[in-house]
Amino acid sequence: MNISNARRVRPSAEAIDALRAELESRISEKVSANDAMRAQHANTLTWGLSEPPDLVAYPVSTEEVATIVRIAGAHRAPVIAFGAGTSLEGHLNAPFGGICIDMSKMNRIVAVHSEDLDCTVEAGVTRQQLNHHLRDVGLFFPIDPGADATIGGMAATRASGTNAVRYGTMREAVLAVTAVLANGEIIRTASRARKSSAGYDLTRLLIGSEGTLGIITEVSLRLHGIPETVSSGICSFPTVNAACGAAISAIQSGIPVARIELLDEMQVKACNLYSGLDLPEEPLLMLEFHGSPQGVREQSERFGEIAGECGGGRFTWVTQPEERSRLWQARHDCHWASKHLRPGSDSIVTDVCVPISRLADCVELTKADLIESGIVATIVGHVGDGNFHVQLMIDRQDPAELTACDALVARLVHRALAMGGTSTGEHGVGQMKRKFMLAEHGAATIEAMRAVKMALDPLGILNPGKMIPERAPER
Amino acid sequence: MNISNARRVRPSAEAIDALRAELESRISEKVSANDAMRAQHANTLTWGLSEPPDLVAYPVSTEEVATIVRIAGAHRAPVIAFGAGTSLEGHLNAPFGGICIDMSKMNRIVAVHSEDLDCTVEAGVTRQQLNHHLRDVGLFFPIDPGADATIGGMAATRASGTNAVRYGTMREAVLAVTAVLANGEIIRTASRARKSSAGYDLTRLLIGSEGTLGIITEVSLRLHGIPETVSSGICSFPTVNAACGAAISAIQSGIPVARIELLDEMQVKACNLYSGLDLPEEPLLMLEFHGSPQGVREQSERFGEIAGECGGGRFTWVTQPEERSRLWQARHDCHWASKHLRPGSDSIVTDVCVPISRLADCVELTKADLIESGIVATIVGHVGDGNFHVQLMIDRQDPAELTACDALVARLVHRALAMGGTSTGEHGVGQMKRKFMLAEHGAATIEAMRAVKMALDPLGILNPGKMIPERAPER
Repeated sequence: MNISNARRVRPSAEAIDALRAELESRISEKVSANDAMRAQHANTLTWGLSEPPDLVAYPVSTEEVATIVRIAGAHRAPVIAFGAGTSLEGHLNAPFGGICIDMSKMNRIVAVHSEDLDCTVEAGVTRQQLNHHLRDVGLFFPIDPGADATIGGMAATRASGTNAVRYGTMREAVLAVTAVLANGEIIRTASRARKSSAGYDLTRLLIGSEGTLGIITEVSLRLHGIPETVSSGICSFPTVNAACGAAISAIQSGIPVARIELLDEMQVKACNLYSGLDLPEEPLLMLEFHGSPQGVREQSERFGEIAGECGGGRFTWVTQPEERSRLWQARHDCHWASKHLRPGSDSIVTDVCVPISRLADCVELTKADLIESGIVATIVGHVGDGNFHVQLMIDRQDPAELTACDALVARLVHRALAMGGTSTGEHGVGQMKRKFMLAEHGAATIEAMRAVKMALDPLGILNPGKMIPERAPER
Repeated sequence: MNISNARRVRPSAEAIDALRAELESRISEKVSANDAMRAQHANTLTWGLSEPPDLVAYPVSTEEVATIVRIAGAHRAPVIAFGAGTSLEGHLNAPFGGICIDMSKMNRIVAVHSEDLDCTVEAGVTRQQLNHHLRDVGLFFPIDPGADATIGGMAATRASGTNAVRYGTMREAVLAVTAVLANGEIIRTASRARKSSAGYDLTRLLIGSEGTLGIITEVSLRLHGIPETVSSGICSFPTVNAACGAAISAIQSGIPVARIELLDEMQVKACNLYSGLDLPEEPLLMLEFHGSPQGVREQSERFGEIAGECGGGRFTWVTQPEERSRLWQARHDCHWASKHLRPGSDSIVTDVCVPISRLADCVELTKADLIESGIVATIVGHVGDGNFHVQLMIDRQDPAELTACDALVARLVHRALAMGGTSTGEHGVGQMKRKFMLAEHGAATIEAMRAVKMALDPLGILNPGKMIPERAPER
């Protein structure tokens, strides 16, 4: 029976002990059944319930991951890969129990090929660890989702972040992965060649599959030279529409912006309050340019002209690191500043992505909806991609607020879909956005995804209860 | 029975007539069984045998494609999508007969969204047709594989070409596709949003699947602003190694080269002979830069310095269109100039791709191998990606030359694989490179590809005999 169709009945303590003993006889590290450890490996960062796994295992190699998966298959036990635990949509919950595979012991940087601008790392390496390692060779890994996530987790959730507009997402950044399939086989999806037309793109199939098609154990990544010069700038606009217009013009005119972030007026207000800033309480664009000294000057000046034409205020830009940090202070503080708007609140963060021409409409309608709902919320957008986040400050103990929040998110998603967008630009599906998948993709596409899932994981042991909706209603 | 496991027995004339009549009763255009038409829709551009389909159909809509596929499924007849017929590895042959789906009547540009820098086109639109259409809105579609291929064919083969180093390949250029699956269902793989983390990446799964997982009928593409200024330049180097070193340095230092092409000395010699040029008969790099006037000047000058440091000659660069054409004359003439080295010969073109750090070695070893074989051949490389083409001038009627050519290609592929590369950077697998797939990917990865194929095409009607090797030897 496919696990995800089974109702969860927690196995007996004896069964769990037996599974644990079998695992420990085959891998080098202890396997934990401790309640605190289990709870730490369940969902922690969203509003869904926490559903801990039965066991937490710490493999030290791809072969050990394969061993765990084979044992899990024999026991029909779910396996859930765990990176840094920073996913936001209940990706890590274990609604059917099973084994959490914590990748933290697999944190070796396997190779850096500086002439090829690539590297290979184990899945448990974090992005900050990698960038620290790369600094001496003048290279960097650009994808920055905010949290210090692991490279494996970022690949599994197709993460991106502020500078995707220039450097792409994990979809573009990953050259190849090593993964363990549900049958315990180890595959390498591609070579380190920059391009290939040799066979199905299993790399991209695994990226964003959230551990439901395989467990990513190693990742080969494209790297970039650390830019000679970085300039950072900010500019206020009277409306979200004007700010988005400037972003569109900048991209259309070919300015290679590295980051272009929108803060709505509520977010700006939150940052003023939290950090003692005196930014005009209007929509704010924050930009970054990468290049030669002359290049970033030209880009910055051209953007300043565009901002002016679009009704924006003065575009202030700087290149010294300390000045850049000060100017971008508001962006770094967004999360905590928002929470500070309602002290003691729980913060829920969700995201959608629309074609950039619809971004202003989508943000404005969402702001109106937020105001009507009475929920305190801020909006920050990666506007170059049409992607924005809504951070909702609620009291998770209040059922009425949870219901209102749920309804708001549903309206947000359906608004984005109606505009030709997607239910999530970068956070992923997990448990929380699974209910929108049919509306987003349609039945035929979902059935194609299900066929792929069934082909690669016929027993349904890989992260069950996530992403693909069940064929029949679950309850 | 899976069609690709069946030996080809050409159906009776009656059976073909019945299939043709059924198709014609359900779609708007005539279905051809004419020998000349069938031959035109088989393999024409490589050294493999030509294996024509039984019938050629011309759908005018996605729904008609779905109708054809459903009828084909009921008859267990193979279906092979046909764009412009410019693929090089026997992709279009019909070793088990069946229906060629010629996409030429599906050549509408469905929508251009200039604010979003994207468009949606039917699969039969060619890249030149699209760029002609886009010129007035100041946008362009950058992928240029040389031939005036269709967008559907380029997506299906994961095509790229000279400016992939800056703009990526079809993998990056496609936002979403509409496709007909083997069961006749029509799917849309994604929205027009620039980013999404909502579900499996069926877009990338179909791109490069060569018609074996679905028939692509519509494609949504990323577009780019036509650059304000383009500069073109050329520079000779004493060795391939020096030329590759300059390419690596340029990319490492972050110069956003738009094209960087290598011609080996034999190719330069061929161009001198054919076009009356007087280029030094040494390895030649040809570059193109896109940007603002100041930007391309800075890029060109910086590259000139790098070329000098790497032992190159003077870097000559120009920005006027006529001068650019003149300077790049040699690149445009490569194919015909090479053929002219051995008048009356047939020309076979193959490609591999390696990590850029291994490119010089791979090219040099390949040149030595070519010299030893006595076959006249030229090499042109998209060096920014580590991808190069070998054009072999042979007599297809001479079995000894065919055997030598076959052995050369096999050695080339195994050399690229041993260097961490791939058997094909952009031409694809088709029939001709299928025998290298196991060596490239290993058995576990091939079995995963096969599982996906079986899940989406259980009857094996979609372009059978291509890409994935049979489990048991075919003969």
